[in-house]
Amino acid sequence: MIKDSTLEGFLEDLASKSPTPGGGSAAAVIGAMGAALVSMVANLTMGKKGYESVSKDMEMLQIRSDKYRKQFIDMIQDDVDVFNGVMAAYKMPKESALEKQARDDAIQAALKKATDVPLDCAILCMDVIELTRQAAEKGNQNVISDAGVAVLAAEAAMGSAALNVYINLANITDKAFVDDRRQRLEAVLAASGELTEMVYTLVKSKV
Amino acid sequence: MIKDSTLEGFLEDLASKSPTPGGGSAAAVIGAMGAALVSMVANLTMGKKGYESVSKDMEMLQIRSDKYRKQFIDMIQDDVDVFNGVMAAYKMPKESALEKQARDDAIQAALKKATDVPLDCAILCMDVIELTRQAAEKGNQNVISDAGVAVLAAEAAMGSAALNVYINLANITDKAFVDDRRQRLEAVLAASGELTEMVYTLVKSKV
Repeated sequence: MIKDSTLEGFLEDLASKSPTPGGGSAAAVIGAMGAALVSMVANLTMGKKGYESVSKDMEMLQIRSDKYRKQFIDMIQDDVDVFNGVMAAYKMPKESALEKQARDDAIQAALKKATDVPLDCAILCMDVIELTRQAAEKGNQNVISDAGVAVLAAEAAMGSAALNVYINLANITDKAFVDDRRQRLEAVLAASGELTEMVYTLVKSKV
Repeated sequence: MIKDSTLEGFLEDLASKSPTPGGGSAAAVIGAMGAALVSMVANLTMGKKGYESVSKDMEMLQIRSDKYRKQFIDMIQDDVDVFNGVMAAYKMPKESALEKQARDDAIQAALKKATDVPLDCAILCMDVIELTRQAAEKGNQNVISDAGVAVLAAEAAMGSAALNVYINLANITDKAFVDDRRQRLEAVLAASGELTEMVYTLVKSKV
């Protein structure tokens, strides 16, 4: 499992000529870092003097950001698994017409799975961006820069996941599926840009 | 050493109530991921059919991105070490006037070190962003989305490092130092925004 690699080993594997782990897993790792930093801000705010009035909010924030971090960690591996599924489908025999049809069907099914993992990643990034807003507004001033790093990480992870959605959609022939996933992705992307800018500007005004 | 943590363990430490590793180390990890993805694109382009004319460029690209990745990995730990230096200085005795002076001097010296690690990180991110341009322009079409993830990672790492520079500068009394570091940081930030946009747009047009 990739999550059990050392940090240095993971970075080496990312750099290597093996196509996995690649950008899709990287997006999930960066998203997980955003969620982790929200948890850190919550952890270093709850119960601290001067932050009594937001302690309950911070507890809720931490429960959610911990959950999201774990979901991102699953996606690091999922992205590799669905990529391998696509590769396996492309390697199926294509001698007879029957084989060709079976292979095409398998490729299309695998590409749909390979689209939905980064799409779920992008949606989860949106959830994290919403949490960073609370972290930036109510979090401990001493760790306010960490809320800013969290929002930048979540935004970069979202843009990265988006590229992985687009690259898979480009080869999918089911137009209804393509339109549906593209629409969902673009709704999330449109909603995130302004919020990210707002959170980053708020953090910058506080550091 | 943080680089020897498992990926999952690092994310847990990031989320925990311990202030280190925090956003500064996260910035270095994200920067390292950007550099690693440039190496991956170079690795999967050199020697490939149809990319003979850019093989030499990709070799040079990989040498540089591998070097930058290693420099980022050092910064993951350096950021923790300089933060601990600041904490240690704040804990120095402050009974007598002499003690107070020694403590103030130690705090100021530690804050300067804690500024220069993320500033170096931001400058290195600029170097990576320049490499992502080559990866996006000349890299293998099959891994072009990875060049896009690389530029988003490097840009997010830069913005994150910048917050860590600002938060330390806010407590430094040496005006010449503050002006110098702020000027250097802002030059790098100004140069990166447009280039990142350009590289991401190029990648998006290719996926």
